[in-house]
Amino acid sequence: MYHLNETHDPSLTSWVSSANSDDTDFPIQNLPFAEFRRQGSSEAFRGGVAIGDQVIDLAAVAKLKLFSDLAQEALQACSHSTLNNFMAMDKAAWSALRLALSTALQEGATEQAQLENCLIAQDDVEYSLPCEIKDYTDFYSSIHHATKVGSLFRPDNPLLPNYKWVPIGYHGRASSIAVSGQTFPRPCGQLKAADDEAPSFGPCKRLDYEVEVGIFIGNGNTLGEPINIEDAEDYIFGLCILNDWSARDIQAWEYQPLGPFLSKSFASTISPWIVTTEALLPFRSSFSHPEDDPQPLPYLTSETNSQSGAFDMTLDCFITTSTNQEESRLSRSNFKHAYWTAGQMVTHHAINGCNLQAGDLLGSGTQSGANEGEAGCLLELTTAGKNPVTLNNGETRTFLEDGDTIIMRAHCEREGARRIGFGEVRSSILPPKL
Amino acid sequence: MYHLNETHDPSLTSWVSSANSDDTDFPIQNLPFAEFRRQGSSEAFRGGVAIGDQVIDLAAVAKLKLFSDLAQEALQACSHSTLNNFMAMDKAAWSALRLALSTALQEGATEQAQLENCLIAQDDVEYSLPCEIKDYTDFYSSIHHATKVGSLFRPDNPLLPNYKWVPIGYHGRASSIAVSGQTFPRPCGQLKAADDEAPSFGPCKRLDYEVEVGIFIGNGNTLGEPINIEDAEDYIFGLCILNDWSARDIQAWEYQPLGPFLSKSFASTISPWIVTTEALLPFRSSFSHPEDDPQPLPYLTSETNSQSGAFDMTLDCFITTSTNQEESRLSRSNFKHAYWTAGQMVTHHAINGCNLQAGDLLGSGTQSGANEGEAGCLLELTTAGKNPVTLNNGETRTFLEDGDTIIMRAHCEREGARRIGFGEVRSSILPPKL
Repeated sequence: MYHLNETHDPSLTSWVSSANSDDTDFPIQNLPFAEFRRQGSSEAFRGGVAIGDQVIDLAAVAKLKLFSDLAQEALQACSHSTLNNFMAMDKAAWSALRLALSTALQEGATEQAQLENCLIAQDDVEYSLPCEIKDYTDFYSSIHHATKVGSLFRPDNPLLPNYKWVPIGYHGRASSIAVSGQTFPRPCGQLKAADDEAPSFGPCKRLDYEVEVGIFIGNGNTLGEPINIEDAEDYIFGLCILNDWSARDIQAWEYQPLGPFLSKSFASTISPWIVTTEALLPFRSSFSHPEDDPQPLPYLTSETNSQSGAFDMTLDCFITTSTNQEESRLSRSNFKHAYWTAGQMVTHHAINGCNLQAGDLLGSGTQSGANEGEAGCLLELTTAGKNPVTLNNGETRTFLEDGDTIIMRAHCEREGARRIGFGEVRSSILPPKL
Repeated sequence: MYHLNETHDPSLTSWVSSANSDDTDFPIQNLPFAEFRRQGSSEAFRGGVAIGDQVIDLAAVAKLKLFSDLAQEALQACSHSTLNNFMAMDKAAWSALRLALSTALQEGATEQAQLENCLIAQDDVEYSLPCEIKDYTDFYSSIHHATKVGSLFRPDNPLLPNYKWVPIGYHGRASSIAVSGQTFPRPCGQLKAADDEAPSFGPCKRLDYEVEVGIFIGNGNTLGEPINIEDAEDYIFGLCILNDWSARDIQAWEYQPLGPFLSKSFASTISPWIVTTEALLPFRSSFSHPEDDPQPLPYLTSETNSQSGAFDMTLDCFITTSTNQEESRLSRSNFKHAYWTAGQMVTHHAINGCNLQAGDLLGSGTQSGANEGEAGCLLELTTAGKNPVTLNNGETRTFLEDGDTIIMRAHCEREGARRIGFGEVRSSILPPKL
């Protein structure tokens, strides 16, 4: 775990004045990482850090040689078209660069004149994936989601006996993950309603989103060497927002016995900015299982994990449609309600010796809360299509229609800390290709 | 599909005399690809082609500029530390290089003197993975395996209703795949026997191998663009042997509802050589479902797939133990008995728009036949540990023990064609790390 330091000081302000606005996601306390270039250009993508409504171009900063030692080395690693090399450096390097940037972007910093030339307005840039995503694993850490979905797929057996012991996860498809702005045709596949004699082929009729947190692995472990729960956080570089698109009808027919496959692999979309775990330090929460539930096995237990293993991260989800560009809220939930922490997911993932690598992405699973309006997908919100949701113009949805856009945003706020945000992930559905 | 050409002529012989031996896996009709370097050296890995007991160093051949146009371009792409760039070229490039190498390695070729300097004995080299494996997907294409395993995990419901319609597959872990020679500690994890009150943590007690065929994707498709079954073979670069290690007790407790995860992700091992689909052309077999079974949906049906979609590829599996270095045979089976063809796996995988990429690996799933001695894993061979197998020194096995080595070999032979082989995949189990 990190320690609170001068970079978290809520009173810090920046000479980039937009960073001092109350409603920015990117005050100087945040400093998240992305890969960007000028919109529509053929420039190489390179690392950038968000500050207010600007991006600071890390490749340009690296050339100035303002920083020394580890911070400069980290900056060099951020100059390439993926952040994998930087993420593969350790916590000390991530922290050194954060401190150097925080110092140089502060009100009154002597570096202001030089760094002003390294700023580009966020409105003028486009993003790529922040790193080459190696393996993608999707967990299932909301017990509220698991229970509600389980009751739809297996009415007699909603929450399976392993759920309260095993941080359930499965391997996902990495190639089809793209950054915010992704569009994709409605997927086709085999569909079979319960009373159909045989499956038929056609476009998915029950297309859904899933509100998830994405957890990016930084440095990895060697094959055969598990990761102790006490050290698990050292392997996490940072978090983003993840929309794990799902084709519920394809899923229902294909998922037994080996799990979801084509129902998930057609697209997943992430927000461009990775907010580092160091920036998230003021927003950690205690973690525990309900007293009556089994307590985690020792390999998943540590004092640190109990004291501050969870993230108090608010997740909002909105929709616009082809006929209504005004956003309708679909849900608000919070990552702190997850039944397993990010650290537990990392430790569990590697307990068999599986090697994690810089650039691996872990999905938290759909983050639903216990209450109405906290369900992170339409399957839950509409009880599998039985109760349509009504949008702010009176339109209704059971599942998604062509032309729909899903927007997710996330932020952390807490008494005594500066509010930080994650930006957004936005993605739209095109008609099927037949 | 390719057409038979001069490279398949069974009467062709090479000036590399070991390639003319009856029992070589690597006659001039084969010409499979790997990444290699001199054993124990710090040389860069580069592409090589097997010929008899030698490797021809493609980076060295590229420098000679003996070939022209597409063949030379392909050769350049093989000079790097992964074959991804070469695999991402198309069938025309793969074929041009095969023809050029076949011509230059033939008895009487004028290139002999120059190419002799590019040979290194296979005994003197070490291999890396042939390419960076992007996404790994494991199918479940043996109905015999699915039925037998299903009857052990779900006695009341062995073969699920979707099996005869859907080429069942799931995403696997790419990071822990290594080349022949891999060793790994016995994995630990959560174990729970049916009558245990709660799970416990410890080393896997039911460690198993799985005999599979690995299918390497060459050129890929764009996200959102499915692959027509008529074109599916154009996306396949070649095949290898795959041992998909499995921890059966971890699997039994974790696999519902999202499929196998830690029970598979600790290690998978492949043979170093990729045998191209062009080399395999003489060994194609017709494909059909039994008459009484549902016929595949139209998107999985083509005349070519019916006529020659299957591969007649014999798969052998052997074991040695820490006290017995003499190989005992465990099984012999054949890929031609698979319920779905490699082409159907490719088309199904992309039918939802999922993008395949050069370097993706598809596992065929355990290839078991209908008869005794054709079961591709111990779970089947021992009926989940109830009937131990006896090795040639009298030792018995239900599941694998520390120090055991599994060796798999594969070959194709047929009247009127030169026999070709795949070499071997060999891997050993170390004691658990606790």
